[in-house]
Amino acid sequence: MIYLITPTYARLEQKADLVRLSHTLLHVPNIHWIVIEDSSTKTALVTNFLRTCGLNYTHLNVQTPPEVKMKATDPNWLKPRGVLQRNLGLSWLRKSSKTTQLEPGVVYFADDDNTYSLQLFKEMRWTKKVSVWPVGLVGGLRYESPVVVKGTVTRWLTYWKPQRPFAMDMAGFAINLRLLLQHPNAQFTNAVQRGYQESTLLTALGVMLSDLEPRADGCTKILVWHTRTEKTKLKNEEKLRQKYGKGTDMNMEV
Amino acid sequence: MIYLITPTYARLEQKADLVRLSHTLLHVPNIHWIVIEDSSTKTALVTNFLRTCGLNYTHLNVQTPPEVKMKATDPNWLKPRGVLQRNLGLSWLRKSSKTTQLEPGVVYFADDDNTYSLQLFKEMRWTKKVSVWPVGLVGGLRYESPVVVKGTVTRWLTYWKPQRPFAMDMAGFAINLRLLLQHPNAQFTNAVQRGYQESTLLTALGVMLSDLEPRADGCTKILVWHTRTEKTKLKNEEKLRQKYGKGTDMNMEV
Ligand SMILES: O=c1ccn([C@@H]2O[C@H](COP(=O)(O)OP(=O)(O)O)[C@@H](O)[C@H]2O)c(=O)[nH]1
Ligand SMILES: O=c1ccn([C@@H]2O[C@H](COP(=O)(O)OP(=O)(O)O)[C@@H](O)[C@H]2O)c(=O)[nH]1
Ligand SMILES: [Mn+2]
Ligand SMILES: [Mn+2]
Repeated sequence: MIYLITPTYARLEQKADLVRLSHTLLHVPNIHWIVIEDSSTKTALVTNFLRTCGLNYTHLNVQTPPEVKMKATDPNWLKPRGVLQRNLGLSWLRKSSKTTQLEPGVVYFADDDNTYSLQLFKEMRWTKKVSVWPVGLVGGLRYESPVVVKGTVTRWLTYWKPQRPFAMDMAGFAINLRLLLQHPNAQFTNAVQRGYQESTLLTALGVMLSDLEPRADGCTKILVWHTRTEKTKLKNEEKLRQKYGKGTDMNMEV
Repeated sequence: MIYLITPTYARLEQKADLVRLSHTLLHVPNIHWIVIEDSSTKTALVTNFLRTCGLNYTHLNVQTPPEVKMKATDPNWLKPRGVLQRNLGLSWLRKSSKTTQLEPGVVYFADDDNTYSLQLFKEMRWTKKVSVWPVGLVGGLRYESPVVVKGTVTRWLTYWKPQRPFAMDMAGFAINLRLLLQHPNAQFTNAVQRGYQESTLLTALGVMLSDLEPRADGCTKILVWHTRTEKTKLKNEEKLRQKYGKGTDMNMEV
């Protein structure tokens, strides 16, 4: 089983991003999609979307507290995003494993706006501890990648802080569920400097460089892309309202 | 049969966009994907991608001449995009209809970066002349839409040039193939002012407002989104090169 942990938050492009991600996931056998909304309550949009998307899912929610929440005006690297949501996904797995017989499998953190090839899921499925691969369009580079020498990861191809223990994006690795259950306290935190989320979790799991299992043909293929969806500028909504007395219909779900 | 006409051009995000679009299209029965590269030759990237994507396709190419080609620094509304490519898709259909028995069906202009629900393809499949529906995240509004009164389109909900004969985005309509074959000269052109591509084609096809077939529950549902993929800033490639003597591996296809 592949357990996908996807944080998501309300924005104009949310439904579009979830729709196209779901089309990808519908091609993947044996996945369980854990979707965690960054909100104090479950929204109607995500609830209805999940009900009809055709995937196996668990719907959770937890709000990022205002003091760490990113503002629309913040540069996108300023605040960590999805931290509490991913942690809630992890606790759900740990709790479920106690009450029900969770199928063995692997856990992958799949942001809602990235692009995933179908091959990626085949590569991660047989992860003993932690499997790794390159990620496209990230870190101000064409791609970032583990550097593999004779089948072992020796360092990181990245410009930004290559000295991090695990200098890779959230999209660049998957973890065997067993390992996560063996370390019940391992999780993400808003308290580390930026870029250290991945390293925090993997270090807490007792993972070493030599444990990493390179995938994607020895890390020579790009199978996942850190795409971002352009923010829509509603520059004409107000003008429409002023000219015709009303804007677009707020009952239309976009 | 649904004939999809998709212009595409080389950029960092091209493969990612094509990959996720293909995942959507793989869920749609009976489609033929006509992919037209904006380039003087067919690229290896698109050629290999199409060969392995699992879809029924035709691969064409035509380069936008430099005098009308958009520059990276141009605002995105300045120049028409995909005009020659869509026209080549139309000529391919017309030519093929003479030599082979093309299956009857509908033609839809599907840009490579939009987001399409699966329901959209069900809605367009039974188009007699031209079917229409709202498009999300376009025109500086949450959505633009035909305004439907008693089953008939009467005008356009859009802030920008609502007086255009067909004031809708390329993603907002599909055309019965027969109608296109009956008007062999109807096509797009770089010679009209911006926003008039859709109107040019539909007017040349002799379409009137009263011919339009509203879909998506009388144009009350958003089934397609004019998403755009953020341009990746390669701000660290040069720095990586300076610091380590080389950048990322240019043989890695991103
Ligand atoms: O306030 C926020 C911002 C983002 N996210 C989610 O956290 C993940 C990473 O955010 P984003 O994709 O915006 O980050 P970036 O693309 O900059 O890495 C995505 O799944 C988002 O939906 C969230 O839950 N709350
Ligand atoms: O120089 C270009 C720019 C765009 N396109 C294609 O034309 C369509 C519309 O372009 P784009 O999505 O950039 O336009 P927008 O999102 O601004 O409407 C897309 O399928 C692009 O791949 C193209 O063939 N050549
Ligand atoms: Mn993202
Ligand atoms: Mn576009």
